[in-house]
Amino acid sequence: MVDQTLLPAKYKLIECSSIECLCEAISSLRVRGAPAIGAAGGFGIALAGVLSHARSMEALINELKQAGDMIISTRPTAVNLAWAVNRVLNATMDAYNLESIRDIVLHEALAIADEDAKLNKKIGINGAKLLKDGDMVMTYCNAGRLACVDWGTALGVIRSAVEMGKEIQVIACETRPLNQGGRITTLELMEDKIPVTLITDSMSAHVMRCKKVDCVIVGADRITQDAVFNKIGTYTLSIVANEHDIPFYVAAPVSTFDFINMENDIEIELRNPDEMRFMAGTQIAPLDVNVYNPAFDATPMGYVSALITENGIFKPPLLLEEVTLNH
Amino acid sequence: MVDQTLLPAKYKLIECSSIECLCEAISSLRVRGAPAIGAAGGFGIALAGVLSHARSMEALINELKQAGDMIISTRPTAVNLAWAVNRVLNATMDAYNLESIRDIVLHEALAIADEDAKLNKKIGINGAKLLKDGDMVMTYCNAGRLACVDWGTALGVIRSAVEMGKEIQVIACETRPLNQGGRITTLELMEDKIPVTLITDSMSAHVMRCKKVDCVIVGADRITQDAVFNKIGTYTLSIVANEHDIPFYVAAPVSTFDFINMENDIEIELRNPDEMRFMAGTQIAPLDVNVYNPAFDATPMGYVSALITENGIFKPPLLLEEVTLNH
Repeated sequence: MVDQTLLPAKYKLIECSSIECLCEAISSLRVRGAPAIGAAGGFGIALAGVLSHARSMEALINELKQAGDMIISTRPTAVNLAWAVNRVLNATMDAYNLESIRDIVLHEALAIADEDAKLNKKIGINGAKLLKDGDMVMTYCNAGRLACVDWGTALGVIRSAVEMGKEIQVIACETRPLNQGGRITTLELMEDKIPVTLITDSMSAHVMRCKKVDCVIVGADRITQDAVFNKIGTYTLSIVANEHDIPFYVAAPVSTFDFINMENDIEIELRNPDEMRFMAGTQIAPLDVNVYNPAFDATPMGYVSALITENGIFKPPLLLEEVTLNH
Repeated sequence: MVDQTLLPAKYKLIECSSIECLCEAISSLRVRGAPAIGAAGGFGIALAGVLSHARSMEALINELKQAGDMIISTRPTAVNLAWAVNRVLNATMDAYNLESIRDIVLHEALAIADEDAKLNKKIGINGAKLLKDGDMVMTYCNAGRLACVDWGTALGVIRSAVEMGKEIQVIACETRPLNQGGRITTLELMEDKIPVTLITDSMSAHVMRCKKVDCVIVGADRITQDAVFNKIGTYTLSIVANEHDIPFYVAAPVSTFDFINMENDIEIELRNPDEMRFMAGTQIAPLDVNVYNPAFDATPMGYVSALITENGIFKPPLLLEEVTLNH
């Protein structure tokens, strides 16, 4: 995997040969983005299969489940991680002997990664219909190929529109405290030669008021019937978009939807306060200052203009049965 | 002056013995905050008087005016800088000989600094009436003693409320891209043992929705009849406060009011893009990424619940004549 914490200054590939290494990579955001950590979680179970010395099917499956618990616990809010881990674990039900378990989990992990890239292309094609030639699109955090397996969700929509021949300009919010927008979204778009301008998160309303912004597109880490969980700051952005009558779109695969829980059931991950006291090793706040550092927020569905999925575009209020129907 | 760019890691005093040094200190934000740069500008004219070798009153006044132009041009948006420089220059009209000019400009600069501290105390006492015991106050950027000569405007209101025996907790937004909130507001409040929690700017709406926030208080760099110019991000914060029915207060001395211009007449300073590509010398975005970096935004008066001044509290729509009346 690309170590995303080092971007854009350094492009470094890392290899995880233990579950601990993978868990560290997920929790420290070396790999991040809901679909990407889903894929990484799936491969984690495949890795656990390879590493295991278990001599019975039962013992191996128990080890895989333990690895799954470890992996899932690294990040509680994004649904794709648990979804992918459980999908790979469930696939072992078809196993007939010890070795077939190892084959099945690797096969299923590869299938998740492969499907994700294809789903993103479908999301892109569906969403691109919402973009007109010449549009200025604001985005938040990174919902690009580095957040997924390829193409991206929010950036996938932009890429598909560009591929269709539409001229699209992007405004990327830097996305504090870990600057995935400033570090990664800018990099991806510049690599693709899609014009991008970096702003601080706080500038969103000023830019909407003073410049042409045609829509906002963000990704999602979990979508319940009543709210979209995404990178902290998404809710603020949705409010200012609504205030300026700018459509606010969420692009995500159906695997991001949580059909069981409502907003209030979901735990929001609190991250290390030092993420806000230091920036790349440099002190930027008093060392002992009290910090509140949630990784996500919930945007009530009333602020969402439409959800862009591989199954089509859905406008709230959501009928979850409709979303899962394969169109 | 304290070099505010080095806070909180380093407390260093700097001395400016040339106008160039002072201008560099103002434009690089070693000294910042509308009232503080006003005072610094005033002392700049006094410094020009000391440095001058002029042998006629006319020549000296011309040199002072040139120094004034240089100082004013460092930061075009904040009104206090031009206001203070012009006040010191205008005071020379009472001069009767060469040496008296030097005395008058120093005296006037000292008066501005002295008045500012007193005005802030009045602003604090007026604004403290708006705060209840136990209130949670959100603030943005730094409108504290380091932004002024002493006490502060927005933080002055909080300090006065605490002095009256009210328990106040503060949420400080870090204020990208130069983190005056994270670096300076936190430091000032911790020095005063006023409880403070640091958040990223993007968290404001989430915090308002999930936690108790009783009001927002910010400072101002220029107040026209139709808008408040303050640190970029203030407008975003005003929208999310309004969305959550949380009062949005602006605390500033009457010298911040611009009775002549309207919002559209005011130039918003654009700052160096590298402020967003680097953080304390570390690269945090692609080196050649396109950046939009305005220093301020305009919050339309409709989002402002009240303006807190040394002359009392005023609710928009503003009658500027009323604001200037000494109550």
